[in-house]
Amino acid sequence: MSKKCIITISRQYGSGGRIVGKKLAELLKIPFYDKEIITMAAKESGYAEETFERAADAATHSLLYSLSMYGSGMGFSGLSLNDKVFLIQSEIIQKAALNSCVIVGRCADYVLRKEKNCIHFFIYSDIDSRVHRATTEYGLAEEKAKEVILKKDKRRASYYAYYTGEKWGQIDRYDLAINSDSIGVDETVAVLGQYVQAWKKR
Amino acid sequence: MSKKCIITISRQYGSGGRIVGKKLAELLKIPFYDKEIITMAAKESGYAEETFERAADAATHSLLYSLSMYGSGMGFSGLSLNDKVFLIQSEIIQKAALNSCVIVGRCADYVLRKEKNCIHFFIYSDIDSRVHRATTEYGLAEEKAKEVILKKDKRRASYYAYYTGEKWGQIDRYDLAINSDSIGVDETVAVLGQYVQAWKKR
Repeated sequence: MSKKCIITISRQYGSGGRIVGKKLAELLKIPFYDKEIITMAAKESGYAEETFERAADAATHSLLYSLSMYGSGMGFSGLSLNDKVFLIQSEIIQKAALNSCVIVGRCADYVLRKEKNCIHFFIYSDIDSRVHRATTEYGLAEEKAKEVILKKDKRRASYYAYYTGEKWGQIDRYDLAINSDSIGVDETVAVLGQYVQAWKKR
Repeated sequence: MSKKCIITISRQYGSGGRIVGKKLAELLKIPFYDKEIITMAAKESGYAEETFERAADAATHSLLYSLSMYGSGMGFSGLSLNDKVFLIQSEIIQKAALNSCVIVGRCADYVLRKEKNCIHFFIYSDIDSRVHRATTEYGLAEEKAKEVILKKDKRRASYYAYYTGEKWGQIDRYDLAINSDSIGVDETVAVLGQYVQAWKKR
């Protein structure tokens, strides 16, 4: 029986992190979770999917007070919507991690920080490649692309800091970090695939 | 004829970056430069090797004024010893980079920033593994190891900031960054080797 292997992918916006994660999951023949997590969480909690997406986008302030309330028995109902979303997503992530899978975003690397059978990757790229990808693949208008990209990264860093108290994108938080456009997405997936094989042998 | 490929290795102290670089050079059958650069530079300039080593260790302040003087014709003799060391080392690095090679440290990634046929790796590890390596392989005393390691990193970051104006260890400065102890040194070398093969195909 193959050793369990959960892979979390954190990524800069426009770096192709999601597609790298998806192709890696296909290569390894394991499930892939991204917005699907939101959908699962929405169904589980009864909230509308849209509400989840907006909440996930808007998180910008400290969670420490909220979490301490939650932990001290004040109850889930005392939390803001944003915090409820995060906690439900985290439960979904932990459930998914009972088996090998690839999870993109959602602070999964932090949620699964105590999980031993877990590899954390960070995908990034240079700004020009990200602008190119965002305009040709994500449909962003060229004149606004760079601004949107940098804003999205800031929000991710904010979201991460808010929910984890840690620094998103800090080099030593990950097992491996890679510029997806230095050798291209497909070769990046191949290198990560080889990393996973080496990891399984350890 | 094989495409030229220069590999720079930046690394946290105690992460095994040097041995990873050395084994990678052996795998790729190309020259490896580390302290050897200092020796070559020393011979070239007539300074004693010891002087170079001390100067490289002690650099902590801004080079911008010195470099502008150098560039504006004031001459090499107007520079401090530290700056002379750095400039001579940089010339040696540029000479080495006329052919494929692996270069560890010495701000080589910055010196060769305009070189197209260049891959920049960053090697790091968790503090406990670094302490273990530093005590068992580098001979550091156990009670002081952690302190020495963190100090060495600070000095490297300082040295780098001083001579380049840039931030050492910032994730997107490199093509790939890897925790050398997640899968072990030999497997790390194998992953980097595969990365290089993929890079040559691009």
